[in-house]
Amino acid sequence: MRPIVQFKEVHYRYRSERAALSNVSFDIIANRRTAIVGANGAGKSTAVFHLNGLFQPSSGEVWFRGEPVTKRNRERMVDHVGIVFQDPDDQIISLTVYEDIAFGLVQRGIAREEVDLRTQHYLALLGITELANRHPGELSLGQKKLVAIAGVLALETELVVFDEPMAFLDPHGKKEIQRIMEMLSEMGRTVIVTTHDMQLVAEWAEDVIVMREGACAGVMSPGELFANRSLVAQTKLELPPIAELASALWDGEPRLMPIRMEELKRWLEQKLAANKLAPLFTEPFCISEHNSSLPLRARS
Amino acid sequence: MRPIVQFKEVHYRYRSERAALSNVSFDIIANRRTAIVGANGAGKSTAVFHLNGLFQPSSGEVWFRGEPVTKRNRERMVDHVGIVFQDPDDQIISLTVYEDIAFGLVQRGIAREEVDLRTQHYLALLGITELANRHPGELSLGQKKLVAIAGVLALETELVVFDEPMAFLDPHGKKEIQRIMEMLSEMGRTVIVTTHDMQLVAEWAEDVIVMREGACAGVMSPGELFANRSLVAQTKLELPPIAELASALWDGEPRLMPIRMEELKRWLEQKLAANKLAPLFTEPFCISEHNSSLPLRARS
Repeated sequence: MRPIVQFKEVHYRYRSERAALSNVSFDIIANRRTAIVGANGAGKSTAVFHLNGLFQPSSGEVWFRGEPVTKRNRERMVDHVGIVFQDPDDQIISLTVYEDIAFGLVQRGIAREEVDLRTQHYLALLGITELANRHPGELSLGQKKLVAIAGVLALETELVVFDEPMAFLDPHGKKEIQRIMEMLSEMGRTVIVTTHDMQLVAEWAEDVIVMREGACAGVMSPGELFANRSLVAQTKLELPPIAELASALWDGEPRLMPIRMEELKRWLEQKLAANKLAPLFTEPFCISEHNSSLPLRARS
Repeated sequence: MRPIVQFKEVHYRYRSERAALSNVSFDIIANRRTAIVGANGAGKSTAVFHLNGLFQPSSGEVWFRGEPVTKRNRERMVDHVGIVFQDPDDQIISLTVYEDIAFGLVQRGIAREEVDLRTQHYLALLGITELANRHPGELSLGQKKLVAIAGVLALETELVVFDEPMAFLDPHGKKEIQRIMEMLSEMGRTVIVTTHDMQLVAEWAEDVIVMREGACAGVMSPGELFANRSLVAQTKLELPPIAELASALWDGEPRLMPIRMEELKRWLEQKLAANKLAPLFTEPFCISEHNSSLPLRARS
């Protein structure tokens, strides 16, 4: 469980405002699928901007691969960490989609032949080859988001951060991005996502960093987070639909509650399958309407 | 079932591009909660921009309250229809949040006293009173979205359109916006939402307008949409988590399948409650592991 990133008592203050991060410490483990969650303004994006050297702590340190990120080496962090920004308009600057994706590669001194190969590869991977010659300004926000993602993936950094990747994507696009995130993990990259999509957290994440008012409220598994109802409420999160349904039906150990679609489906199929055989024998013993509408929890 | 908006064979073409809308006809019923769904680029936003006169059909007509919207009257449509744009940066123009919300009211010639009352009221309703004197440029996208929503609600139009309202909002913010949408409906306003959030469609909408490649693929209830798997696939949508789970467990009429959290919870609680009594009697009749892991559908 080798940490790739370590936050060590990081404080960060924007001009004039109250601290955006205060005393934040956590480790991000190499090649673990990590989600950063929290309400708007909890410090998720501010934390993320420390990962590629864009921000430097007001005090405290951020370490990368066991070395502190310093004023001297922070500019090289962009070679290791690619960030897909929340708002694609912050990221897209060129006159065509193709040149926009190629731009970051040319900037890094990569040979033109390789630049073209990678640009074409990532256009195809994101399913946007047909947009290659379009002006980014003409595109929808969802399309721009895909262009911004392609541009970051083309850098082929070992750490890839998605800041709210699903905003503006249609359901099909969301599934595609989740597929790409999984592919990156399989290739050994470390993928970090900030998101408000709790179903994505449940289905995808291994580790969850919970932010609350600029502080880190803990690092845990999605199962631990969603079993901790008071933490969920304090951090202004909500259970994802599947976990909310499960919490009404589950009578076991809270931490073992199914929070993924497939787990809950399997558990319910088994429960209901047992039930399908039962009525043959139990109907004579009067399972009345009255009984069957009793709340489930009262019975255990 | 009085239509408030009617699209009559509407075609729309942006400069130089293929048709963004082709032969689109549908009615939107007054005071029905209406969702417009479809993949990115299917024409949802283009349709919405016809509602307040911002766009005019290349051919065909849009009617409002039984009258065609014409070149002569289309400028007055903004008095009837408020649109919260997808990207709050397209909407926010003033130097402070307060002035931004007040701006639209001042523009409409409303007296300053009323302007201030409404501005304060809608800041409070959205929970952003503390942002009143901030520069919009300093805010997060989620905060900007709330400012944009407050600005449109302050206009108190009879028809309120939210174009992808939930993007960038945290789970708490999403619940708040859904609460406000419900409040507007109760006040007799007509609320229209374009969204990729299929769980929101399931929980909130009464009518769903399904767009596909610039055409209208039908108007239906959320239940009808999610029961029609081939339409869902053709339009690049996905079932929301609750409906996806239900579709694996439901053995009744497809159109009656529960797609809302509370419906599925109630149905499963009843099914499982019956099961809770059963094992006492049925265990001796050998419900083996083998039996209980049979797929549910094979048993009905």
